[in-house]
Amino acid sequence: MFDLLNTIDSPADLRALHAQVLGPLADELRTFILHSVSKSGGHLSANLGTVELAIALHYVFDTPDDRIVWDVGHQAYAHKILTGRREAMGNIRQQGGVSGFPRRCESEYDTFGTAHSSTSISAALGMAVAARNQAHRRHCVAVIGDGALTGGMAYEALNNAGRYQDLPLLVIFNDNEMSISPSVGALRRHFAELRAGHCDAMLFKSLGFSYTGPIDGHNLDVLVPALIALKQCRGPQLLHIVTQKGHGYSPAAIDPVLYHAPGKFDPAHGVVPTVIGKPTYTQVFSQWICDEAALDPRIIAITPAMREGSGLVEFEKRFPDRFFDVEIAEQHALTFAAGAAVDGLKPVVAIYSTFMQRAYDQLIHDIAIQNLPVLFAIDRAGVVGGDGATHTGAFDIAFLRCIPNLTVMTPADENECRQLLHTALQLHGPCAVRYPRGQGRGVTASSLHSLPVGRGQICRVTRRPVGARLALLAFGSMVAPALEVAGVLDATVANMRFIKPLDHHLIEQLARDNDVLVTLEEGCVMGGVGSACLEHLASTGHFPPVLQLGFNDEFIEHGTPEQVLEMCGLDAAGILHSITAFLCSLDMKSSTTCSAINAVTLRSRQ
Amino acid sequence: MFDLLNTIDSPADLRALHAQVLGPLADELRTFILHSVSKSGGHLSANLGTVELAIALHYVFDTPDDRIVWDVGHQAYAHKILTGRREAMGNIRQQGGVSGFPRRCESEYDTFGTAHSSTSISAALGMAVAARNQAHRRHCVAVIGDGALTGGMAYEALNNAGRYQDLPLLVIFNDNEMSISPSVGALRRHFAELRAGHCDAMLFKSLGFSYTGPIDGHNLDVLVPALIALKQCRGPQLLHIVTQKGHGYSPAAIDPVLYHAPGKFDPAHGVVPTVIGKPTYTQVFSQWICDEAALDPRIIAITPAMREGSGLVEFEKRFPDRFFDVEIAEQHALTFAAGAAVDGLKPVVAIYSTFMQRAYDQLIHDIAIQNLPVLFAIDRAGVVGGDGATHTGAFDIAFLRCIPNLTVMTPADENECRQLLHTALQLHGPCAVRYPRGQGRGVTASSLHSLPVGRGQICRVTRRPVGARLALLAFGSMVAPALEVAGVLDATVANMRFIKPLDHHLIEQLARDNDVLVTLEEGCVMGGVGSACLEHLASTGHFPPVLQLGFNDEFIEHGTPEQVLEMCGLDAAGILHSITAFLCSLDMKSSTTCSAINAVTLRSRQ
Repeated sequence: MFDLLNTIDSPADLRALHAQVLGPLADELRTFILHSVSKSGGHLSANLGTVELAIALHYVFDTPDDRIVWDVGHQAYAHKILTGRREAMGNIRQQGGVSGFPRRCESEYDTFGTAHSSTSISAALGMAVAARNQAHRRHCVAVIGDGALTGGMAYEALNNAGRYQDLPLLVIFNDNEMSISPSVGALRRHFAELRAGHCDAMLFKSLGFSYTGPIDGHNLDVLVPALIALKQCRGPQLLHIVTQKGHGYSPAAIDPVLYHAPGKFDPAHGVVPTVIGKPTYTQVFSQWICDEAALDPRIIAITPAMREGSGLVEFEKRFPDRFFDVEIAEQHALTFAAGAAVDGLKPVVAIYSTFMQRAYDQLIHDIAIQNLPVLFAIDRAGVVGGDGATHTGAFDIAFLRCIPNLTVMTPADENECRQLLHTALQLHGPCAVRYPRGQGRGVTASSLHSLPVGRGQICRVTRRPVGARLALLAFGSMVAPALEVAGVLDATVANMRFIKPLDHHLIEQLARDNDVLVTLEEGCVMGGVGSACLEHLASTGHFPPVLQLGFNDEFIEHGTPEQVLEMCGLDAAGILHSITAFLCSLDMKSSTTCSAINAVTLRSRQ
Repeated sequence: MFDLLNTIDSPADLRALHAQVLGPLADELRTFILHSVSKSGGHLSANLGTVELAIALHYVFDTPDDRIVWDVGHQAYAHKILTGRREAMGNIRQQGGVSGFPRRCESEYDTFGTAHSSTSISAALGMAVAARNQAHRRHCVAVIGDGALTGGMAYEALNNAGRYQDLPLLVIFNDNEMSISPSVGALRRHFAELRAGHCDAMLFKSLGFSYTGPIDGHNLDVLVPALIALKQCRGPQLLHIVTQKGHGYSPAAIDPVLYHAPGKFDPAHGVVPTVIGKPTYTQVFSQWICDEAALDPRIIAITPAMREGSGLVEFEKRFPDRFFDVEIAEQHALTFAAGAAVDGLKPVVAIYSTFMQRAYDQLIHDIAIQNLPVLFAIDRAGVVGGDGATHTGAFDIAFLRCIPNLTVMTPADENECRQLLHTALQLHGPCAVRYPRGQGRGVTASSLHSLPVGRGQICRVTRRPVGARLALLAFGSMVAPALEVAGVLDATVANMRFIKPLDHHLIEQLARDNDVLVTLEEGCVMGGVGSACLEHLASTGHFPPVLQLGFNDEFIEHGTPEQVLEMCGLDAAGILHSITAFLCSLDMKSSTTCSAINAVTLRSRQ
């Protein structure tokens, strides 16, 4: 079935092939990807679109000495398979398995780690300059899609690269937008006109690039000679190739969004919609914003190219004039929201935690300094699973809570998520509600009532005697495991709800009534909200022992969300273990207590 | 002298004038700006270039109902003068005076606060959408320079705006690049060709804009009719005007960089170079990087359009092939550095603290996750003075220290700055050295020796008895005032040097040997390095009372650096006051101590 593919253990094997067999190899590789992804889950549509490109690049260029940077990187499966990782694809994105993105630590062919969009041209230009300055001749290639080209960073890189007319830099513009719809940005219309041959490529030429194309990115008889020719050219070159997401597997070609990153499925039958029991937080948000928008015409929704991921499909259908997909442009998204807010709208920006990092200055400079009422619905705040370090929402608490004027909330369940979003909408300044990826606890989200700002809630009270009282200060998703642990240890649990403003009164009360405090957050400990609790305790001068639980000071690897939480010690067993270790380290009054706790812990972990 | 100008208290007065007197008004306005800035200090070159534009915009458009957004905003003096702030210009950028930038709280004509570059089109588009969705007819105008157009955010906004062919959005492209030099990005070559009439405006057209121009931005007989005509057009319009920085005052026109933001000067004689006693930290960096570059050919310097401000003029002269001004493109700057670092160069990115906010994701995603050896020389970390909230480096400690793999240092004087920069260059991962604006303590910077990573230093030891011992944990610029205060209070002082990794050993020792700790940093308290100290103390279980000093949770207004530090309570007197108040609040053992301290404090503040 994979007679040719099985002979390719590295690009050197590929380059030994006659050009005539590259087509059959592409067929095998495409089938391999389809079968592999259907068994492992992972990105599919984009990877079916880059099979020929990956073959042609490794065939023509002298990799790994020549550099290939795959923008976003979720389209690099063919590249991985051709560079010695064919057998490893079975456990892609799984704990201990290969990453779903290029990673430098994984292969010398992965010259630059990617995952967030629009970075490839900058990185490839850096490599080209490094080669020039060290008198090393090599080609540096960036592969970038039409979506990633809407990110301003790509344009900054094109403008900068265009000045270096001596560098062997090749940008492959992988254009897989098949249709032209009126509801897209101007650039995509321009690309469509280029594809149709209706205009000159002045955009790229004005940025200093020589333009070649458009050519069929699935036709190796065209692609290989084009790359060979471009290899001889000096100066910044742009090759425009047209490909199709999902190419060769018709269900994916017809609905590339459904097949963007499917779970496991049977290729013969395609993806079967699964009935989800509990709604995800994304769905809770989706329902909430539609409900609110029906009541208040000032509400608009803004997404940087994450309509599906952020749960805005229904909103766009119902409120098309109030829906704004600004493409992959987080910086613009926030300042556009700021402009709308100054003139009376109520913008809701739906954004993932790590993509908020792309618009940090706009948040401070354009929104917080002016104290504008923009609401951020921050999805994927915390562990994400298969996407790993690049997508883990580890830092938002730390980088948000230092900003004046900003309110930051974190719901413990679905209904509270809805209530906090509603609360946020009533505020007269900027506000962020952070919630995790995936499903919640199964609490029905129906209420549209506000909750008091800056007020948490005690949800369980210990019966332990003074001298051995323990309180867990849990934020957001950590309330559930905290309650579980508290059942074992007989601890008090507070659902803190607000990261900023913190519930100072509640913290003081908990510090007064308990002997040890534990803060729990699904985010980094350094600078996180546990530290905010410490800041307040320090200011009061009364300081019981405090254990801070959250992510350690390291990037978090991929795995299932459950595995990752366990790895981080943030599942109930891990939390229990950390608390007992801390209590014992404090030599909590009686060693009996300590042993008793240890015994309980051991039982609970069995 | 200002007969016409004195009659203009609002744009309504301006609009009552006959078009023929606008020219003479422009002459008066230009003279007024020159005289005003020469007395107050502030931005000059850019403001002399926008006199006619400000007059024409307020003459043609119905401000404030029509919206004008001034990108960057340091060219908005004429706008301020025409909108009721003529008399207030004398104290611009001074404590309690008007801001050097547009501010919403200052005037209804300042529709959107600006200061950082490339935000105006996003904001104006947001306003245009707000007007459309509320069925209000108004024009929204963004004024953006050629520099700001190199920022990717502007391109994101153009692309997004280009889809709305029904909105009355006008972008004024204020092109004041007079020369075409080979050492600039591709865009500026394109603009030069546009100015010369050598090409079509396909860049803007491909982004969905109708293009008009180029026209002379100093000729009101051309400018006013052009704006009147564009007012009638629907859909995104771009007007290309050509202006001259420093126009009408030949010293500034000849050297617009020297006159960018001069201090006070006599217009008859121009700016006289002043002999500076102590070097600034920028100059220490400037000398350091040239010294290191002479020894190591792998070192390159990268700046996002801040060659002068960051101290890289000399470096460019001596090492032109190793100098990279990537224009106003912070995102690209960092990932370009990452690309260069993976292939063996040692990139040094010189960047201001608040501009680092523009590249936060690139720092995490492209540099820290891959643990690449990129060195950040972070200037303007802390108080900046006249530029105010938008430029105050308040947050970098908080947003940097949560990032894994990153080392963060903060020197106490000029020589330590040089030593820490040298230390950073030896590391195998990313590293930031933050230093403040302006001059240091006058310590000669000569050494190129490394300092031990993660190690602070005790610089003064108290002689007070156990039970009343106080230790000041000072970071960077706070070491000097800490020593001053310690002289009064007889406290121990530690120069902590490292924000990350913290000197845990030293903190434990100080906590053991003292009864009260005070952390001092020129940055926000929330999430700052004082909190890092608390985190470590909490983890040890031994927690003396700790006072955290730094910026409160609010944005910081403009004034002289000294005034701002005083306002923040970070001058010696303010620190002393806070410490004594804290000690008294703790009821430190004996009330005698408290009274004694109070007496000392009062004396010192007289």
